[in-house]
Amino acid sequence: MFYLGFDIGGTMIKAGLVDSGGRLRSWEQVPTPASGAEGITVLLDDIFNRLLMKAGLDGPEIKAVGVGVAGAVNPRTGRVRLAPNLGWRDFPLAACLSNLWGRPVVLDNDAHVAALGEMWQGAGRGKQDILLITVGTGIGSALILGGQIHWGVEGRGAELGHVKVAPDGPLCNCGGRGCLETLTAAPAMVRAARRGIEAGRPSLLAGKKDFTAKDILDAARENDELALEVIDRATDYLSLALANAVLLVDPEIIVVGGGVAEAGDIFLGPLRDKIKAALGPWRQSELPLLPAALGNKAGVIGAAYLAGEERLWSTYRQPS
Amino acid sequence: MFYLGFDIGGTMIKAGLVDSGGRLRSWEQVPTPASGAEGITVLLDDIFNRLLMKAGLDGPEIKAVGVGVAGAVNPRTGRVRLAPNLGWRDFPLAACLSNLWGRPVVLDNDAHVAALGEMWQGAGRGKQDILLITVGTGIGSALILGGQIHWGVEGRGAELGHVKVAPDGPLCNCGGRGCLETLTAAPAMVRAARRGIEAGRPSLLAGKKDFTAKDILDAARENDELALEVIDRATDYLSLALANAVLLVDPEIIVVGGGVAEAGDIFLGPLRDKIKAALGPWRQSELPLLPAALGNKAGVIGAAYLAGEERLWSTYRQPS
Repeated sequence: MFYLGFDIGGTMIKAGLVDSGGRLRSWEQVPTPASGAEGITVLLDDIFNRLLMKAGLDGPEIKAVGVGVAGAVNPRTGRVRLAPNLGWRDFPLAACLSNLWGRPVVLDNDAHVAALGEMWQGAGRGKQDILLITVGTGIGSALILGGQIHWGVEGRGAELGHVKVAPDGPLCNCGGRGCLETLTAAPAMVRAARRGIEAGRPSLLAGKKDFTAKDILDAARENDELALEVIDRATDYLSLALANAVLLVDPEIIVVGGGVAEAGDIFLGPLRDKIKAALGPWRQSELPLLPAALGNKAGVIGAAYLAGEERLWSTYRQPS
Repeated sequence: MFYLGFDIGGTMIKAGLVDSGGRLRSWEQVPTPASGAEGITVLLDDIFNRLLMKAGLDGPEIKAVGVGVAGAVNPRTGRVRLAPNLGWRDFPLAACLSNLWGRPVVLDNDAHVAALGEMWQGAGRGKQDILLITVGTGIGSALILGGQIHWGVEGRGAELGHVKVAPDGPLCNCGGRGCLETLTAAPAMVRAARRGIEAGRPSLLAGKKDFTAKDILDAARENDELALEVIDRATDYLSLALANAVLLVDPEIIVVGGGVAEAGDIFLGPLRDKIKAALGPWRQSELPLLPAALGNKAGVIGAAYLAGEERLWSTYRQPS
């Protein structure tokens, strides 16, 4: 049995044909078109056919298709409510695709399917209660409880990036103040380092005109004092948000994805220590905090997992 | 069919005989003995018999017994791990009682059974995803998802009282800094008001030697400026913790119990407004925030509910 997974992001559409053991049998990735929802089903159908061809399959072996979309989706209706980076609004994607392909199509948010991928084949393997957070340009998150995405009453899922960690903090795009994303995501780290340099602090970063969060993490590894301070501040806020989340839902494991996670222990080390200190006696057993393992393939693999797990479909209402 | 519910607290043991429609048929309450676990089964057996007698029942009609205990319990083993206010430690209460009574005995934490009571017969009626917080001498909390208590990996459940809301805040008994409980519970409100009076602030409270959180709420209702400020500060912290919890788990409803909830809109009004403001676009539908409805009977009614809901027992491992 084989399943297709699509991961539709603001920059790229990634897709894979995955077997029931979680192995990728073929892979496609194309830039996301600027044309919005117009023509998207034709493009996805084209990818569908190329994936089959590359894997040497005819089609009947494909039981179902899973799709992750970067935006607010309603998994119960299979509609994309709002995907600003894609230019979609109230788009019945699952119904369109299941009509086209004559197969069940299951839809969820991109962070959610990536979390399912990490549970199935990545850092969360064998766990059922997982808190996943992705720290990159923004902050994505997903909460898996009992092996299923926890959507909450509106299907929105966990939005840890907008947890308030500094009541008088910077204004966020969402209109809130002191959202975690404004203090811990990559652009916030870059801003903090730039402020330090402008204030005359010596730093390996001072010579560079444009630097990224990755450069900060690299500088920290060479004991750059300013870079270490930026990481210290970012992990202060992130540990606060994560420890508070653990006090509420107490997961088996935390998985951290995105650029800062790839940097390894220079970021994850202090993060682990601060979470442990903040939890004190409230967490007796070890709380593993692991970097995501599937990189940019987590979404595709997780979408295929969703397609393959029929027991999950009762909560994802199928368009007929 | 009838069920017994016990609610074993640090001050009182409350118990009731409840029918399958949720009506209390008889009620008992006695002070919690200072003797610890010693002799507790004899006392509970005595209450058991008095409840039957008062309700005019013989015994066979009682199908099962639910017990809530003020302390850390392991619902999966039926053991009370640690109940400092009761002087119990690693006590196999469910096994003792089910041997004694020849009936299933299901055990959980007191805040958890109170939340189940509110879901069954109180403010959360008809809802499946409920966040309950009790603000009194301390802060208790419970998260119900899909109609079941969310315990988390260690069976501890939600501990919103120890969420950190002020990183450099006061030291808590748990060893943490800035725990919600140290800034919002009744003693924190009394301390804040006392500081104001000592600083020479005029207030209706100034004349009283000892005042309680209830006095503060009463003074606020008469537009006492200091009392209103104390409430403003407490609801700042509480709304921060609750909005952040909603960003993570997005429940259908929040239920607030304890003394401050009984005070009504003088406290709950600003709390509602601040949560709404903090959530901004992240919660589109209304988020009802209601005072608990069952008062000091929530625990007993919820424990009886737990006894009556056999479908829940698969997660509560039964002692044989």
